[in-house]
Amino acid sequence: MKALVFGGPGEKAWDSVPDPGIQEPTDVIVSVDTTTICGTDLHILKGDVPAVTEGRILGHEAVGTVVETGAAVSSLKKGDRVLVPAITSCGRCGPCKSGMAAHCEAVGGIGWIFGHLIDGVQAQFARVPYAETSVHLVPEGVSDEQVLFLADILPTGFEIGVLNGRVKPGDSVAVVGAGPVGLAAMMTAQIAGAGKIIAVDLAESRLKHALDFGATHTVQGDADNEILAIAPGGVDVAIEAVGVPETFDLCTRVVRAGGTVANIGVHGAPTTLHLEELWIKNITITTGLVSGSTVPTLLQLVRDGRIDAEQLGTHHFALADIMDAYDVFAAAGENDALKVVLKS
Amino acid sequence: MKALVFGGPGEKAWDSVPDPGIQEPTDVIVSVDTTTICGTDLHILKGDVPAVTEGRILGHEAVGTVVETGAAVSSLKKGDRVLVPAITSCGRCGPCKSGMAAHCEAVGGIGWIFGHLIDGVQAQFARVPYAETSVHLVPEGVSDEQVLFLADILPTGFEIGVLNGRVKPGDSVAVVGAGPVGLAAMMTAQIAGAGKIIAVDLAESRLKHALDFGATHTVQGDADNEILAIAPGGVDVAIEAVGVPETFDLCTRVVRAGGTVANIGVHGAPTTLHLEELWIKNITITTGLVSGSTVPTLLQLVRDGRIDAEQLGTHHFALADIMDAYDVFAAAGENDALKVVLKS
Amino acid sequence: MKALVFGGPGEKAWDSVPDPGIQEPTDVIVSVDTTTICGTDLHILKGDVPAVTEGRILGHEAVGTVVETGAAVSSLKKGDRVLVPAITSCGRCGPCKSGMAAHCEAVGGIGWIFGHLIDGVQAQFARVPYAETSVHLVPEGVSDEQVLFLADILPTGFEIGVLNGRVKPGDSVAVVGAGPVGLAAMMTAQIAGAGKIIAVDLAESRLKHALDFGATHTVQGDADNEILAIAPGGVDVAIEAVGVPETFDLCTRVVRAGGTVANIGVHGAPTTLHLEELWIKNITITTGLVSGSTVPTLLQLVRDGRIDAEQLGTHHFALADIMDAYDVFAAAGENDALKVVLKS
Amino acid sequence: MKALVFGGPGEKAWDSVPDPGIQEPTDVIVSVDTTTICGTDLHILKGDVPAVTEGRILGHEAVGTVVETGAAVSSLKKGDRVLVPAITSCGRCGPCKSGMAAHCEAVGGIGWIFGHLIDGVQAQFARVPYAETSVHLVPEGVSDEQVLFLADILPTGFEIGVLNGRVKPGDSVAVVGAGPVGLAAMMTAQIAGAGKIIAVDLAESRLKHALDFGATHTVQGDADNEILAIAPGGVDVAIEAVGVPETFDLCTRVVRAGGTVANIGVHGAPTTLHLEELWIKNITITTGLVSGSTVPTLLQLVRDGRIDAEQLGTHHFALADIMDAYDVFAAAGENDALKVVLKS
Repeated sequence: MKALVFGGPGEKAWDSVPDPGIQEPTDVIVSVDTTTICGTDLHILKGDVPAVTEGRILGHEAVGTVVETGAAVSSLKKGDRVLVPAITSCGRCGPCKSGMAAHCEAVGGIGWIFGHLIDGVQAQFARVPYAETSVHLVPEGVSDEQVLFLADILPTGFEIGVLNGRVKPGDSVAVVGAGPVGLAAMMTAQIAGAGKIIAVDLAESRLKHALDFGATHTVQGDADNEILAIAPGGVDVAIEAVGVPETFDLCTRVVRAGGTVANIGVHGAPTTLHLEELWIKNITITTGLVSGSTVPTLLQLVRDGRIDAEQLGTHHFALADIMDAYDVFAAAGENDALKVVLKS
Repeated sequence: MKALVFGGPGEKAWDSVPDPGIQEPTDVIVSVDTTTICGTDLHILKGDVPAVTEGRILGHEAVGTVVETGAAVSSLKKGDRVLVPAITSCGRCGPCKSGMAAHCEAVGGIGWIFGHLIDGVQAQFARVPYAETSVHLVPEGVSDEQVLFLADILPTGFEIGVLNGRVKPGDSVAVVGAGPVGLAAMMTAQIAGAGKIIAVDLAESRLKHALDFGATHTVQGDADNEILAIAPGGVDVAIEAVGVPETFDLCTRVVRAGGTVANIGVHGAPTTLHLEELWIKNITITTGLVSGSTVPTLLQLVRDGRIDAEQLGTHHFALADIMDAYDVFAAAGENDALKVVLKS
Repeated sequence: MKALVFGGPGEKAWDSVPDPGIQEPTDVIVSVDTTTICGTDLHILKGDVPAVTEGRILGHEAVGTVVETGAAVSSLKKGDRVLVPAITSCGRCGPCKSGMAAHCEAVGGIGWIFGHLIDGVQAQFARVPYAETSVHLVPEGVSDEQVLFLADILPTGFEIGVLNGRVKPGDSVAVVGAGPVGLAAMMTAQIAGAGKIIAVDLAESRLKHALDFGATHTVQGDADNEILAIAPGGVDVAIEAVGVPETFDLCTRVVRAGGTVANIGVHGAPTTLHLEELWIKNITITTGLVSGSTVPTLLQLVRDGRIDAEQLGTHHFALADIMDAYDVFAAAGENDALKVVLKS
Repeated sequence: MKALVFGGPGEKAWDSVPDPGIQEPTDVIVSVDTTTICGTDLHILKGDVPAVTEGRILGHEAVGTVVETGAAVSSLKKGDRVLVPAITSCGRCGPCKSGMAAHCEAVGGIGWIFGHLIDGVQAQFARVPYAETSVHLVPEGVSDEQVLFLADILPTGFEIGVLNGRVKPGDSVAVVGAGPVGLAAMMTAQIAGAGKIIAVDLAESRLKHALDFGATHTVQGDADNEILAIAPGGVDVAIEAVGVPETFDLCTRVVRAGGTVANIGVHGAPTTLHLEELWIKNITITTGLVSGSTVPTLLQLVRDGRIDAEQLGTHHFALADIMDAYDVFAAAGENDALKVVLKS
């Protein structure tokens, strides 16, 4: 088969590789119908994720069709159309049983293994471990594009941004960073009943998108003062969706006493936490990697027409053209791209 | 002043009565700008609420202007425009401190006293006890009609239906009874992220209204089967908004294992609870009188344009024409009326 | 092997039967080291549970040793000592993923199948389906007797009584029915911080036991008045652990406004729910079958020495003497028996 | 009357000052029966709290008797014995209504005003603003010493440590810092059902006390490794009760993935937050000043004999000897003192 193979920092290729096969009785093999590229894939290509070794097939978000099942698999069968999420869940360890597959012990303590510790889904076929406890059947009448982003970005925005942030009806929510995951947080904050959704970003083009994803206000410049003008006293929830110290610190400044800062951003450096001011402020700070526990809920919201997840896919390619798709996505800003959709 | 005075079962009049005055240092007097009539007022007129005695001024929902303040009142002043809610809260007893003013001990264990145990607000002026802990300032730019129904019906639907029912994003919700309070439950269930909102009623006209209040489906006839066809396995939340044994029982049949039945209806008779089937079903049943703890949230949602509470007011009258308004409201079905709005 | 075989209403025998074997790749076979008898087994023997057919091996609570594993089983191995709980969980259906194995869809919608729909554990060996997602490893240094009652009765009292009842530090809790499951509720209510635990029963001997399980007060006679004398205004939580209309109704009368009635009792008949009084009382009523989601927590509490579950076992027998054990347990009152312990 | 008067950094005196009088209709005057000294008072004396000006009477924890009531006060009367807590609550602002009196807007946004922004309770008499919504009646049969520490330290440990930390039955809890507030956290963590309570401190004498307050383990030296040896994988909850960067950082290292760090410590400097490691760890960090919302619960636990708050008072003085008491408390370590009790 063909697959997008990592060749070390800066190197990748759409190569011929051996087809994957069943290794464990709990595996299934899927033929990949639709996949996408994540910002994390770009980080890997830069060499920022040393655990990813040369020869690894990238990608961790896909919709596919089951073509083979392991001996222990009883609830999935050949021909089933499934969403393959970023997180693998064994379903039997303590973290999985408590809904925190992000830390699945059976796969090493971090549930993200596709395109990281095992071969990923930017390929014609993929082996899916612990398939029955990991994948989700795609309901009839729902297209691949409608559910593709439920593999990672939408549950990330919802679980790590909105639910960790405990967004309630009427809340004011600042989402700092209007990239794809920030937009996912806005879209699901709206579903959770937020009254005000304040998108904060430096790029005007992103803020324009934000308005399509539920933002009620946009803030480009002097964020502190503009946010506090919109939400006097501070926002109920500040969602960090960038991953640098400055934006995290901004969140702790604009959250009201009693509010929550929910960090989604992937940070590469420590930050300064102003406990000399925050100790008295009754705030909550949360961090986390997505577990995917809300995918069934999001699937239901898609089916009920309350979420249009498809609108995150701005650019479409054939899977065979994935090298071009990477180019477009790597220059998302100048291409006004959010996410790319790759179909086999 | 003039006021709507209860004259015993079947009797009421728009009469001249003495102006109310400050009795306790925590009182304020408001001039009533806008008020409405509640189904409970009709029950009182039928003689169903024996605690209401002859000579009592009816009414427990109003928007007014402060004209006088008691000696202890520091946070309200003459000229303030306030929402006077159905529930009086002393703010210092155990129930009030825990957000359950419905059972305020200072006013006798039931927070509903206006037009019940003390004179109400269907009058030109009204005395408001424990004003600072009970009323809400109406923000500038918000009309009386936009907040009037936050005095009772909207927080009732939200607190006793949606919050007690723990409606979450993606939930399927059946609201049995599409009268005003059922519509309030639908409107706020939508805000809480419900995926499906199934309005159940016998009256076609009410079901038509339901679609304007967020219902995604309507069920008129064979409720059990139709509901289960829409939500296979049962709904996540069933909200009872009628108050008779049949509709309560329907709710316990159509709720899924693990779901919640939230009773809003005012019941006059016991019902049969099928514990021989329900003991194993992992369901939750809740009951309750509104406390008004969500009024600030609802006010925020109105200001943010997420709730259009005004649409509950279908018929408008001058306060002096309240006798006509009662006639229209008492025949709500034939007049296609939801709530009446009375302005001084 | 030998097993306790149901022979139709009123009939049982300690019979020779074929050894069980692996049927599905997710099965394990355990050699039963320690087991017990449940009140449900007595109901089955009376013919009250028609789904149990002649020839069925009874029993649904055991500690055993793994002797064989199915092909898909990777996290359990021969020699592992495991707690086999009453509830089987596939780990992959919606209810299991949301912590409600009580309604596991893979085994038919009710997670209790041992000694009911498949052969049980009152036997020398037992087949355990979905073993990896159902059983719990018994930590070293912990005896069989210390964990045996975590198979059913202790998580039932904790999940369906204490957690459903939302018992919080300082709460007053009435437990109506001081049989084994009521005692389990008392023991875990104490762990949850209850201030007062009021045991209510007709039998003096049971009330005496109650004091050993955390009860701070006992009530034998005029329950309404005695409970309200101990907890003026009503208890925060009333736990029904009998299963008849009278005790359920008592719970709804003695719970305070804003409190919770948690039903554990297995009911065979409907009850009257006084909604004409309860609609305004802001109460919550819960029902349910145990899911076992708290077994890891209870295991931890046993290890940490905070729960002495062993004290529920008052009478000890060799497994081969199970017929005698049934006699003693069936006459628990006259034998002052709580639970029997059977060791192979 | 006599009172402990702040005279600027390093200066204090037990001086004659004018008696306090009613200033607002919501005030009461109490005669102080029993009071104590807080670590914060020592900070004030060092000059660390510039808002406290010369001439201010110190102290914010007392049990007293009402001797005069303002015109608006109806639920308190002369002779009532009351607990005067550290936090003043107006009961009518948004924060107070939502249970967060720590940020009461009526008193300036921080509910701690006694001995800070207004005269305190280390005096023979004290004026108590917003008395009805702030003080708690002391039940008959309960001594001053039993409730004195419910004024501040015990609800601080419970609300900001245990409840913010979401301690549940079976949790492992590390409390870093075994001073009075750390001990209060241990005592209430036990009530909340913690399985392991690990006291961490450098002082052996404090660790010895810890064992009397519910600690199951003590750690003096290499905290990281010792804690992880007791709670492999990390503790469920780490409570910071010191207030320096090192101990806060320790908490973030020893908390398990999915756990909570609850900060109680008063910090004077920022800390480094290792988001490059923590972003993926699914942790929650909380901060806060006590609100006192749990005082009724703690009072109930005292009455029910579940909390022996009195044991925090190790040294007793006459109120007139408060200068000596300060000396003892300022050298708590060498005196093996926890809290002092001063009686008039």
